[in-house]
Amino acid sequence: MADNGISRRRLLGTAGATGLALGAAGGAAGYAAAPSDASEGAASSRAASLTSLGADTVMFHGKHQPGITTPVQSRGHLVAFDLAAGAGRKEAAALLRRWSATAERLMAGKAAEGGDTDVARDAGPSSLSVTFGFGHSFFGRTGLEKQRPSALDPLPDFSSDRLDKARSDGDLWVQIGANDPLVAFHALRALQKEAGDAARVRWQMNGFNRSPGATAHPMTTRNLMGQIDGTNNPKPSEDDFDRRIYVPATGNPSWMAGGSYAVVRRIRMLLDDWEKLGLGDQEAVIGRHKSDGSPLTGGTESTEPKLEKADADGKYVIALNAHARITRPDQNGGSAMLRRPFSYHDGFDKDGEPDAGLLFVCWQADPLRGFVPVQRKLDRGDALSEFIRHEASGLFAVPGGAAKGEYVGQRLLEA
Amino acid sequence: MADNGISRRRLLGTAGATGLALGAAGGAAGYAAAPSDASEGAASSRAASLTSLGADTVMFHGKHQPGITTPVQSRGHLVAFDLAAGAGRKEAAALLRRWSATAERLMAGKAAEGGDTDVARDAGPSSLSVTFGFGHSFFGRTGLEKQRPSALDPLPDFSSDRLDKARSDGDLWVQIGANDPLVAFHALRALQKEAGDAARVRWQMNGFNRSPGATAHPMTTRNLMGQIDGTNNPKPSEDDFDRRIYVPATGNPSWMAGGSYAVVRRIRMLLDDWEKLGLGDQEAVIGRHKSDGSPLTGGTESTEPKLEKADADGKYVIALNAHARITRPDQNGGSAMLRRPFSYHDGFDKDGEPDAGLLFVCWQADPLRGFVPVQRKLDRGDALSEFIRHEASGLFAVPGGAAKGEYVGQRLLEA
Repeated sequence: MADNGISRRRLLGTAGATGLALGAAGGAAGYAAAPSDASEGAASSRAASLTSLGADTVMFHGKHQPGITTPVQSRGHLVAFDLAAGAGRKEAAALLRRWSATAERLMAGKAAEGGDTDVARDAGPSSLSVTFGFGHSFFGRTGLEKQRPSALDPLPDFSSDRLDKARSDGDLWVQIGANDPLVAFHALRALQKEAGDAARVRWQMNGFNRSPGATAHPMTTRNLMGQIDGTNNPKPSEDDFDRRIYVPATGNPSWMAGGSYAVVRRIRMLLDDWEKLGLGDQEAVIGRHKSDGSPLTGGTESTEPKLEKADADGKYVIALNAHARITRPDQNGGSAMLRRPFSYHDGFDKDGEPDAGLLFVCWQADPLRGFVPVQRKLDRGDALSEFIRHEASGLFAVPGGAAKGEYVGQRLLEA
Repeated sequence: MADNGISRRRLLGTAGATGLALGAAGGAAGYAAAPSDASEGAASSRAASLTSLGADTVMFHGKHQPGITTPVQSRGHLVAFDLAAGAGRKEAAALLRRWSATAERLMAGKAAEGGDTDVARDAGPSSLSVTFGFGHSFFGRTGLEKQRPSALDPLPDFSSDRLDKARSDGDLWVQIGANDPLVAFHALRALQKEAGDAARVRWQMNGFNRSPGATAHPMTTRNLMGQIDGTNNPKPSEDDFDRRIYVPATGNPSWMAGGSYAVVRRIRMLLDDWEKLGLGDQEAVIGRHKSDGSPLTGGTESTEPKLEKADADGKYVIALNAHARITRPDQNGGSAMLRRPFSYHDGFDKDGEPDAGLLFVCWQADPLRGFVPVQRKLDRGDALSEFIRHEASGLFAVPGGAAKGEYVGQRLLEA
């Protein structure tokens, strides 16, 4: 196909007729108005407006990698790769160069070079984002131990962990998100193919979230327990957001400037047990109303819980082991992590229990100030812990975004 | 929550402000204009228009069950249940009554009765459809052998089948589709809970399709091989559509009037092999251009292939074993089945190969005139067969739609 930025196969026939603007990120030269068929010109206004889902574009280049503050997509893949035997720094650099070039193309709605599978053909990029990270083991395999940040030191063991090592860690980590499942799958296969002989898949997980437009409350997402998820997440508009989420330019190591650390936990939800609880018991476990996420002490989702408030019997309204009390930001030095999870559902296991839960992903400038202190508290006394099980874990250094002409990780691999 | 048809939690705040019509099926009393928050009133026109994805509603009651001609949704679950030991006709009737009531509620955007999980809360029904069917074994377990239609006789063995019995067949079959993954999961869990002690899950598969709005070509869906899927599907507007797809009112047995037979095949795609083929080789296997689905003999996707056309060397342009030649409707007594598949992707297997492919579902008035003759030909000489593997199979009698006040299968179970 043509490689001129206006690939004919990507034309969205109805966008021009209605004067639809591209997504806020803009810049998708591949979208233009050119109805290829008379019947498309007669598409309803609804069909026309929905094409913005396909046209929405996330930028690959920038100060930070995409997929951190990008609104969470309805479909996601998390994949870890291990470098192949014999592959070292040189092969890793070439791989990151290939991966970056492919991610940039696909996120702009172009085909992969060297034989595209056509699975995303006809569709727009649909907010596709691709994010790359390095695990602890990457640095030893590439002779870059001296560049390994101390923030990548293994997470502490938590007493409630039931971790499957085969689905944990990994040399390299890729996060893919898109609002179309075929676009996400297409990116996954393209990146896997680019890995070639340099790396092989260690583990892979598929996830999902609310579809855009399914609710009029776009900031609200629910998990498979039915709880609102993301309350108290720091917001990019807040003054200290960057300090909490991104590694500073003056930080150490310098190649992580503008980067972030991702903690990934596959958290199985014991839904058969959870769903047996009545609504009141579920709300007591969480400390919030299930309907709207408001604290049991009143208000709205954004109201501060009144942790000291007691009922007529002198008992705390929000119990001492309630999830909302333990995770409350001012109990943990402020919200020092940005949660950005996907739900997962892989059918059911041999006992007939649903193999479903949360692909928890959180972002922070320093795991020791973000995930670790909160998880330590949860591990000791969270009422929710008997309904969940951490089954896999990973910690990855996600470098800053690539400048134009640069690839992700270049400042590490070519230092 | 209130059960007055206008459940507060389902209000879509922006729909009214833009005068958006409901989906063509209409009738969702639960949607109304009532911005609950000033910031929602200021939502962009894009966000407002996208709420129609959530608001789109499929009707539960009707001559036919939903999920047959319903436009295919972006998320789907196929589930088979077996009746529990000791459960017979009475328990099956009660289960179908419960299931029908729950399907009707959820498809209208209401909560399930008796303790909703809240996973779909805030969202509209998002084109949710639920479809129920009976397998061959159902009739023996309920003492209804005399009512078993001969069309449910087991499918013939095909030489290329590699069927996993544990993921095949089943007493009862449920097909769930929705344009929001959480809405689909919510319905799955609600129906599984309704099964109670009467039935347990035998197998379950998760699938997906293009998201609405990801492409301006809504009739075109692609599978994970990158091929356009659904070419030559019969269309409801065609004169003989009903005759081909639905069991006639004068047919036998009478309880199947307005019903259809669903053939379900889990078709693994050997993607690592397929993707190694060049584009020309892939197109030769199919007999169509991958870009637009047009026959190799020219035209557009809807052009009839010129099967007799030869190239300069006297060779057929569309090879004798090309998939398009073997499946061509006029070679098979007309298109006697309606394909309505989902793609699936369950990660990768222990050999590192993707466990991905097609949850093939096709609909027909008679499997012996629909699926069987086509599959017999494919089994003998389809060039595509070396790139796919049928790993599970089911055949289900799907009764006609329930009238108001009736449940699905009532005419069988209370005859």
